[in-house]
Amino acid sequence: MIGLLTDFGIKDTYVAELKLVLLSHGIEQVLDISHHVKAGNPRHGQFLLQSVYKRFPAGTVFLGVVDPGVGTERAPVAVRFNGYWFVGPDNGLFSFAASGDVFHIDTEKPIFPNRVSETFHGRDIFAPAAAGIHNNLTRFLKKAEGLSVVAPIRFVEEITSLFCSEVLHIDGFGNVVTSVRNALLGRVILEVNGTIIANSHSTFAKGNEALFMVPGSKELIEIVAREGRASDMLSAVIGTEVEVRIK
Amino acid sequence: MIGLLTDFGIKDTYVAELKLVLLSHGIEQVLDISHHVKAGNPRHGQFLLQSVYKRFPAGTVFLGVVDPGVGTERAPVAVRFNGYWFVGPDNGLFSFAASGDVFHIDTEKPIFPNRVSETFHGRDIFAPAAAGIHNNLTRFLKKAEGLSVVAPIRFVEEITSLFCSEVLHIDGFGNVVTSVRNALLGRVILEVNGTIIANSHSTFAKGNEALFMVPGSKELIEIVAREGRASDMLSAVIGTEVEVRIK
Amino acid sequence: MIGLLTDFGIKDTYVAELKLVLLSHGIEQVLDISHHVKAGNPRHGQFLLQSVYKRFPAGTVFLGVVDPGVGTERAPVAVRFNGYWFVGPDNGLFSFAASGDVFHIDTEKPIFPNRVSETFHGRDIFAPAAAGIHNNLTRFLKKAEGLSVVAPIRFVEEITSLFCSEVLHIDGFGNVVTSVRNALLGRVILEVNGTIIANSHSTFAKGNEALFMVPGSKELIEIVAREGRASDMLSAVIGTEVEVRIK
Repeated sequence: MIGLLTDFGIKDTYVAELKLVLLSHGIEQVLDISHHVKAGNPRHGQFLLQSVYKRFPAGTVFLGVVDPGVGTERAPVAVRFNGYWFVGPDNGLFSFAASGDVFHIDTEKPIFPNRVSETFHGRDIFAPAAAGIHNNLTRFLKKAEGLSVVAPIRFVEEITSLFCSEVLHIDGFGNVVTSVRNALLGRVILEVNGTIIANSHSTFAKGNEALFMVPGSKELIEIVAREGRASDMLSAVIGTEVEVRIK
Repeated sequence: MIGLLTDFGIKDTYVAELKLVLLSHGIEQVLDISHHVKAGNPRHGQFLLQSVYKRFPAGTVFLGVVDPGVGTERAPVAVRFNGYWFVGPDNGLFSFAASGDVFHIDTEKPIFPNRVSETFHGRDIFAPAAAGIHNNLTRFLKKAEGLSVVAPIRFVEEITSLFCSEVLHIDGFGNVVTSVRNALLGRVILEVNGTIIANSHSTFAKGNEALFMVPGSKELIEIVAREGRASDMLSAVIGTEVEVRIK
Repeated sequence: MIGLLTDFGIKDTYVAELKLVLLSHGIEQVLDISHHVKAGNPRHGQFLLQSVYKRFPAGTVFLGVVDPGVGTERAPVAVRFNGYWFVGPDNGLFSFAASGDVFHIDTEKPIFPNRVSETFHGRDIFAPAAAGIHNNLTRFLKKAEGLSVVAPIRFVEEITSLFCSEVLHIDGFGNVVTSVRNALLGRVILEVNGTIIANSHSTFAKGNEALFMVPGSKELIEIVAREGRASDMLSAVIGTEVEVRIK
């Protein structure tokens, strides 16, 4: 199957155009992960992909397109890692898979359209490449060395080892996903833009405070609000720094 | 097949995570009803589900997750009603099915993951339960008495019997769905937040007034606007009271 | 297969209701093109449909519902054109296919529900008709003459032939899709609401200017912004005039 992650949104015809390419290669089983990665932010895309890819069946090919540099010289890549394939631009989106087998995509091969557009590589390069890999037709892959990486996401696993966290994601409810592991819940105090969050509860429903911490479903502490959106109350965006202190 | 109704929105990976659980149980036929139920409002979710469930094939299992109390003691339930199954939190979302067979879900059974998260029961409890029921593997169901209900939705069927209606839904065009049955169109005057709507037409296109009534596709009178969004013009939100008077 | 294009948005149950009708006729292969056509704007819908339909497999039936006049006397139509079928309201949505075979839909035939709602022809007329055509059961089609058309979209192919262009679409990134063909890139200067865009680059990443032109994936020049949304910077909306001058 193919898993799709992009920053395209769903208002345009772009997602349909990706799916039509896959369909033209006989692939019908496609699952949308999200099309709302923060526009042009491969690191945010990386976090979302990293957080769910293991839930897919082994052998899934991920078509990931978050590509602020479309049309530049950044290589189109495919990475085999942990029994999965990741296909997209070499701009850090797949940093977490940097220890995998890296291949560049040779768009001269006949699997690609004669005319590759300069602004929609998702449709003209990455979708055909993902389809080819899915169908075990991979003559367009050329072994390469190394992958471009963005600043790695450092999960706060031990309070003694690292005291600075960040906002990795803000969900549709306004919940703020930090890089601090659930295991530290109850042992830490967080500070975001001058606001201190000291209390934690095991669930949303048990908290009375305006803002508090809960253990998130991605194994990372989330800051949530009793009423309203925590992200708005904290003026937090993806990338905002979160200070972590021992309680 | 499985019908999905949540308040998750589609920007996050949550919907994909539900579908991956279903897929891991071999279920591929899934239909999204809506992921934009008003956040944390089971009564709104109930209305949408109630308005469409009969259009699904007999035997459909509905996975409904609108769950402001995730992690509290509200039971996870499954209800068999009218030839359908409804699976989700026992918080009123399925009130319309209260006369059905009610079962609690025993999450000790092996169908569930070893570690159930406290904040994402949709993925860890309700999706596996819906999959189990779909596949006729239901040993985790325990007969229970009664279902939690929210204030029932009282449809205005006869102008002599009830004079107070409410806004049940606002659609993407800003059309205001009331609880007054289409059969009363032309016989009633509505008042919303001080604005009186007296005229009605059989279709949008026939109305000239700023605001007027049309017979809605859910068999309920809708207030619509010639130009702009009726909901904005009336400052109406889900739950706003609508006074009904004889014309 | 069936391709879906509407202005319904995805917050309501409307799209699910269309799909359930198709499913009830045994059709499972459905692809969403977009549900975010500008509300009530058949011409915008036409542009999006026209720009992608050829990417679908031959024989695809398109169910297009952008229908400000639902319930008026505009005919329900089906058009066979270029090996595809287009089903929807006769309001200009299919103008580009006006040279095809045009049929009116006779809703007296048993394929349609006994009671057709006056406000949701998408569900009650067009979806059953699309399903019937897909399944080669077409006794409800009656040969007709001519199709309603909206002002035709005139693509600027040659700078000598036409000097006035328009904004055909604004995508989720705020990129402004004009009606000027990519082939003219580098030879023209555009003016939108008093702002002159003179420079062009082959890709987003190569531009340094606040606003510049790139060759778009729909073969039409797009105006894009180095930072921010070009559409906001130009106060451009769908339909805004674009002046084209020789460079």
